[in-house]
Amino acid sequence: MGKKYLYLFEEGNATMRDLLGGKGANLAEMTGLGMPVPQGFTISTEACTRYYEDGEQIADDIRSDILEYITKLEAKTGKKFGDIENPLLVSVRSGARASMPGMMDTILNLGLNETVTEAFAKKTNNPRFAWDSYRRFIQMYSDVVMEVSKAHFEKLITDLKAKRGVESDTDLTAEDLKELADQFKAEYKESTGDDFPTEAKDQLFGAIKAVFRSWDNERAIIYRRMNDIPSSWGTAVNVQSMVFGNMGETSGTGVAFSRNPSTGEKGLYGEYLMNAQGEDVVAGVRTPVPIGKLEEQNPEVYEQFKTIVSTLENHYRDMQDMEFTIEEGKLYMLQTRNGKRTAAAALKVATDLVDEGMISEKEAVLMIDPRVLDAVLHPQFDAAALKSAKPIGTGLPASPGAATGEVVFTAEAAVKAANDGAKNIILVRLETSPEDIEGMHVSKGILTARGGMTSHAAVVARGMGTCCVSGLGAIKFSEDETSFTLGGKTFKAGDSISLDGTTGNVYEGLIATVDASISGEFKRLMDWADSYRTMKVRTNADTPADAANARRFGAEGIGLCRTEHMFFEPDRIAAIREMIVADSVEQREAALEKLLPMQRGDFEGIYEAMSGLPVTVRLLDPPLHEFLPTDPDDIAALAKEMNISLENLNAKIASLHEFNPMMGHRGCRLDVTYPEIGVMQTRAIIEAAINVKTAHPDWDLVPEIMIPLVGDVKELAFVKNIVKTTADAIIEEAGIDLPYLVGTMIEIPRAALTADEIATEAEFFSFGTNDLTQMTFGFSRDDAGSFLDAYYANKIYESDPFAKLDQNGVGKLVETAVKLGKQTRPDIKLGICGEHGGDPSSVDFCYKAGLAYVSCSPFRVPIARLAAAQSALNDK
Amino acid sequence: MGKKYLYLFEEGNATMRDLLGGKGANLAEMTGLGMPVPQGFTISTEACTRYYEDGEQIADDIRSDILEYITKLEAKTGKKFGDIENPLLVSVRSGARASMPGMMDTILNLGLNETVTEAFAKKTNNPRFAWDSYRRFIQMYSDVVMEVSKAHFEKLITDLKAKRGVESDTDLTAEDLKELADQFKAEYKESTGDDFPTEAKDQLFGAIKAVFRSWDNERAIIYRRMNDIPSSWGTAVNVQSMVFGNMGETSGTGVAFSRNPSTGEKGLYGEYLMNAQGEDVVAGVRTPVPIGKLEEQNPEVYEQFKTIVSTLENHYRDMQDMEFTIEEGKLYMLQTRNGKRTAAAALKVATDLVDEGMISEKEAVLMIDPRVLDAVLHPQFDAAALKSAKPIGTGLPASPGAATGEVVFTAEAAVKAANDGAKNIILVRLETSPEDIEGMHVSKGILTARGGMTSHAAVVARGMGTCCVSGLGAIKFSEDETSFTLGGKTFKAGDSISLDGTTGNVYEGLIATVDASISGEFKRLMDWADSYRTMKVRTNADTPADAANARRFGAEGIGLCRTEHMFFEPDRIAAIREMIVADSVEQREAALEKLLPMQRGDFEGIYEAMSGLPVTVRLLDPPLHEFLPTDPDDIAALAKEMNISLENLNAKIASLHEFNPMMGHRGCRLDVTYPEIGVMQTRAIIEAAINVKTAHPDWDLVPEIMIPLVGDVKELAFVKNIVKTTADAIIEEAGIDLPYLVGTMIEIPRAALTADEIATEAEFFSFGTNDLTQMTFGFSRDDAGSFLDAYYANKIYESDPFAKLDQNGVGKLVETAVKLGKQTRPDIKLGICGEHGGDPSSVDFCYKAGLAYVSCSPFRVPIARLAAAQSALNDK
Repeated sequence: MGKKYLYLFEEGNATMRDLLGGKGANLAEMTGLGMPVPQGFTISTEACTRYYEDGEQIADDIRSDILEYITKLEAKTGKKFGDIENPLLVSVRSGARASMPGMMDTILNLGLNETVTEAFAKKTNNPRFAWDSYRRFIQMYSDVVMEVSKAHFEKLITDLKAKRGVESDTDLTAEDLKELADQFKAEYKESTGDDFPTEAKDQLFGAIKAVFRSWDNERAIIYRRMNDIPSSWGTAVNVQSMVFGNMGETSGTGVAFSRNPSTGEKGLYGEYLMNAQGEDVVAGVRTPVPIGKLEEQNPEVYEQFKTIVSTLENHYRDMQDMEFTIEEGKLYMLQTRNGKRTAAAALKVATDLVDEGMISEKEAVLMIDPRVLDAVLHPQFDAAALKSAKPIGTGLPASPGAATGEVVFTAEAAVKAANDGAKNIILVRLETSPEDIEGMHVSKGILTARGGMTSHAAVVARGMGTCCVSGLGAIKFSEDETSFTLGGKTFKAGDSISLDGTTGNVYEGLIATVDASISGEFKRLMDWADSYRTMKVRTNADTPADAANARRFGAEGIGLCRTEHMFFEPDRIAAIREMIVADSVEQREAALEKLLPMQRGDFEGIYEAMSGLPVTVRLLDPPLHEFLPTDPDDIAALAKEMNISLENLNAKIASLHEFNPMMGHRGCRLDVTYPEIGVMQTRAIIEAAINVKTAHPDWDLVPEIMIPLVGDVKELAFVKNIVKTTADAIIEEAGIDLPYLVGTMIEIPRAALTADEIATEAEFFSFGTNDLTQMTFGFSRDDAGSFLDAYYANKIYESDPFAKLDQNGVGKLVETAVKLGKQTRPDIKLGICGEHGGDPSSVDFCYKAGLAYVSCSPFRVPIARLAAAQSALNDK
Repeated sequence: MGKKYLYLFEEGNATMRDLLGGKGANLAEMTGLGMPVPQGFTISTEACTRYYEDGEQIADDIRSDILEYITKLEAKTGKKFGDIENPLLVSVRSGARASMPGMMDTILNLGLNETVTEAFAKKTNNPRFAWDSYRRFIQMYSDVVMEVSKAHFEKLITDLKAKRGVESDTDLTAEDLKELADQFKAEYKESTGDDFPTEAKDQLFGAIKAVFRSWDNERAIIYRRMNDIPSSWGTAVNVQSMVFGNMGETSGTGVAFSRNPSTGEKGLYGEYLMNAQGEDVVAGVRTPVPIGKLEEQNPEVYEQFKTIVSTLENHYRDMQDMEFTIEEGKLYMLQTRNGKRTAAAALKVATDLVDEGMISEKEAVLMIDPRVLDAVLHPQFDAAALKSAKPIGTGLPASPGAATGEVVFTAEAAVKAANDGAKNIILVRLETSPEDIEGMHVSKGILTARGGMTSHAAVVARGMGTCCVSGLGAIKFSEDETSFTLGGKTFKAGDSISLDGTTGNVYEGLIATVDASISGEFKRLMDWADSYRTMKVRTNADTPADAANARRFGAEGIGLCRTEHMFFEPDRIAAIREMIVADSVEQREAALEKLLPMQRGDFEGIYEAMSGLPVTVRLLDPPLHEFLPTDPDDIAALAKEMNISLENLNAKIASLHEFNPMMGHRGCRLDVTYPEIGVMQTRAIIEAAINVKTAHPDWDLVPEIMIPLVGDVKELAFVKNIVKTTADAIIEEAGIDLPYLVGTMIEIPRAALTADEIATEAEFFSFGTNDLTQMTFGFSRDDAGSFLDAYYANKIYESDPFAKLDQNGVGKLVETAVKLGKQTRPDIKLGICGEHGGDPSSVDFCYKAGLAYVSCSPFRVPIARLAAAQSALNDK
């Protein structure tokens, strides 16, 4: 006997979601609960996988299984495919493990042909209903199964209405609809070259194939990538005998939630239409009425429905989203599922269910998708306002939230506009650089044409909690960069646009937004999460303000303080440039001497903000040329300011040129060549710590000095020696007891491969998974945009490895480094400070890999806290 | 009892080289053979390691051991340190495992002070000799131990000779020399601030420390890096009682070889000086006489020496290089070692020793350092001419051999000069690019200011066998690039320079060269090597000419044919640019259609040249912008040629800009985005194979198509599908039986980490260790020059990871990939095509890792053959 691919609803249950898909499993569960579910069967997700394995064909064994189950369904319902007396009509719907809006939804009324319709008209004594059902079926089948454009059919309807001189579809008679069905079939033949199928079985196989195919359409692929759904899952297909909400005034159809999906308020919420099929509710031609009205129209059915809703919510122990149909006064349940909800509703429902005793605190913590927290921490578009807006382009969702405002093209213009009182500024750039920081700060949203999820714009925007869409390659700037075109429109400075940093969508004009609102439920839930969490959550913060912000979000330390981000302030950039241009150690030391008090001040501020929580400071990382101007005018100005010849300065800049700056003279390599930089930074870190510790002797202040870009234990030892010699001398002179740690980023593959050696010197490892991902994959995040789309389209990559840690490759290096590091130094402190620290699936990987903490940008701290709690709970 | 750090000569033997160093082990061995060796002891290399571990201090336990051994030596010789009757005088010499010219050589006459000298004068009845010995000791000790400049002492001698009105040192009297000794001591005090040590033990500890220190001076570090000697080895110190060749006319000293070190001819070869110390022979003030003369001067000693030489050669079974001293008619042996020899001599000695029955063929194969073969394959500087030349700069030894000629600054100028009949052209560039190929071809040598050992210039030059020095950062070009300065001199076009691609040295003017000469011995030795070798040796060749050349050197196939190198020919670059600029698939296909016949022709030529040996062709690898011009004039010309607007072309070029081209849109990523490129290349490869196979049905032609830069099995599968679909259709249409393989480079860390998955698709792996090294270390070979010097100087790296495979990091990835690859596909074909394929230690690693072949540039094929033979022999 072959594999079982098909299941009657009565053969399944809710635990079989992987096999039957969400919809199928729940139809089975409701059937088991004795609820009024039209009978049917589910073709499993494994059949979908077979379909693709077999070269997009339904294998013969599955075909004959399907025919066998149709026979079973015929026996159960007493109806028959193509039968004139009592025809079996079915709906066909897709249903994956996870709900997927990108896929085919539904085909209704399958099984009709001209003869059957004729008979159906007689049987129901309602010819108009019968012919309307038939023309709807042809229309739906043509569109969904054969991809014949809907517009063709709409035109035929409009033409006929004009001919008849009527306004509304409902004014068309049974005869009209029959004529329309003929015209539709002719259109079908013209578009596809084939006759419209009259055999119910042919129609069925066509529909099933269409469902399987829809698993792999572009929208579905994009949705899966955005939601971490593997393409190997496949979709199930549900074949269910039809019930009709459009059989007259005692029939109807509707959708309802057991609680309000926007607010989470308890109570039945939904709407329905009498004498209608599902599509009418959705299409918006007629206005549905609130579900409460049903109590007046049919109190018996209303009571029955309320009981079912309550049973389902109690059974599933979560808010339900249901579809139902009333056929001539009799209620049928067509679907139930855990309802989608806004972030605010998710928090309210979870806490309410705990208060109602329906679920435990643990279950509440596990119930919330950590990613939705973004929405309660950032402004969002008003849902109603967004409904009518069409995106003019879609970039990468680089930093979540919504922003709406007027375009500026330079950081300077942004600052000027802000000084002039402008509140809503959208900074649009080819790409941003550290010099743009101030302008980014005053902007509500940032849009760039280049750069990935971890480009400068993306990282900085996330740190500030500012909405950002990056890498929107479709933007074309005018040569003088005073305008850009997108979606066929040209935008100049002052024009309005809106950005959705959560989806990457960009809209023309101003769209209303609603502010972030952190509710009491948020705090309750996060407190529960923290009580189960075992892994620490730190933040990546470079300034006292960032650090303070992150503490509000629950950060338990700083995992990455990037010292270079402090260097771009106007009062510092001059000194750093002086250092770069220096020709001798003495000149360089003189310039560093100017930077010392500023850096020390920065660190004091950060230590103060963190009140003794651990702070990891990374020594200077980027290549020095990043601090030099590139524009000829700016270079000339700098030469003047520095009092050196333009020729000398140009020669210096040329000598710093790099082919591949990512893999160039940066990180610890700077300290090997210019030890005085490491000396200055160590002094600033340690002197600041001494000052703060003196002011707060009770704080447990242990600075963690992190040496970046290490690939060999000897280079770590070399730089560590600079750090220790400097630090120990200062500490001894101060006569204070100040423990400190020296560790390294693990961000170069070689460091992971030789972590046993590295750990002889490193007192902690912090996985820099941004760079580690770049090196392991061999591509630069700034350049990958040119080919990644093709990789997604061809399903080579299913997710962005810079957003979701590649466990198969990069993860192996992390695991190797953890193992080797602990081998040498069992108590080594392990953490992650790459962008992945704020991604739930990556947080889970870090938990399983045995890391002590994750560190992420301030606004992601709550996400990481919740994700870490879920990992700990799931581990039990 | 502590560790044993000291050994009397009689306690050691030749097998203890690791501990006693080469010199010490051989002195011990000669002692054991009963030869006349002045007694002494060796301080082991472990004492040197201790010295560094203890913070550059001689530990107390070793100090007391040394004093104990001095007492033993005193007892053996009957002499005593500081004794007026019979003073013990010693020499102190360094001696590492491997001979190292960068280290301290010798201090003689240690133990003398004023009182002892006085007594010594009486005892020897030769006051002039005694005072001369003393002043020499002061001079040597000051220079070597305390780094007081020699010039100071030379000036004092010159002044005294002027005062006395004499010409020669030998005209100075005993009194003069005594006065000089006083002046020297005063100079010593002035330079060092201390009195010259009078205690023999203080002198001894000073000298021992100087030897230890010299292990780590800059010259020694550079020498070690160039010769793969780890810094952990340390040096031994030999303390030996003095014998004097300058005691009068029956005394003398000399050096001799058991065979001629230049030619390998059998027979005693060397020179000596009577009444002299070793330094006199070297200094060249007096002219030494040929060793044969000794037969007349002292036939008894000559016979004794000849017997010793013969015994030693038979004992060591290799040509010996010896030092001896005759003290008042008595012969003493001071050193023996296997003699350094030219490459030609090495081959002759090895084959002669086989013919003489002294060694086996296997031993002959193991005797030759594979790296010396470079010298017999390339022109070299005439040794005599080179002696008087001083390098004006030193770059990287990028491609071996010597070249001398006139400077040109552009590839065009090189071509023009060649057309005008110039024979000796030296192309000097900031860096080379593929456009320079033709100019490089006509040049005798190539010098670049930028780029590492695997830069474009280096790779291409090695392929052509042309001398190249790369990455000479000290070169400063004038702004208009019509001249450069180096070593304080300015060079214009037409000025003469000479390059040594084996050392990296650059000289002013023309230096005579001797041509490469492949001898009969070379062939004999390579045949022996091949008979023991188990690993195949292929070559990296991109043209039929390269391929033919490599076959002459014994290549057994092509491991890497880089298709892009064919694209720069003037007739192709237009088509490739047309393809890049194309806006649609159709335009791109049209341009590719033009390239197809040319590529097919290339491959036909290569298959023909290889007569059915395996040929691995790599699909297009570099990012497309490498093929576009960068100069504004060239861009304008191209726009005109392509008949597109300058604005459009500039926009296209801008859109191809990459921040990190190394990690950008290249390799298989090109085929994913533009499958039509892969289709065209596959067609060319397969159609050419069909044509050649049709002409030579007996050839076993199996094209190997290699997909570069793979990081994920899915991208390999995607491109492989393009290749197979195309190839299978062509083969089927041709109705021919043509097997072919599809495999991949392993050059991205992720590919190595997931090699089990990759091997499900790949039929072979070729390790691209250039890129793998870059990604694993996280630095770009083109940019590393700015910091690598600091890494070498600080002993962080001891060798260039692009020249010698990093077994600890990159090697781990190779081993992982081999293991995982074989796990999935036990018969997977494994090779290496990175530059490391021609480096002996890396070849040995490949052998141990289980690779089936190495592939390297044509001129390195013999090196790889010999190295692979040695690996196989050493494995037994």
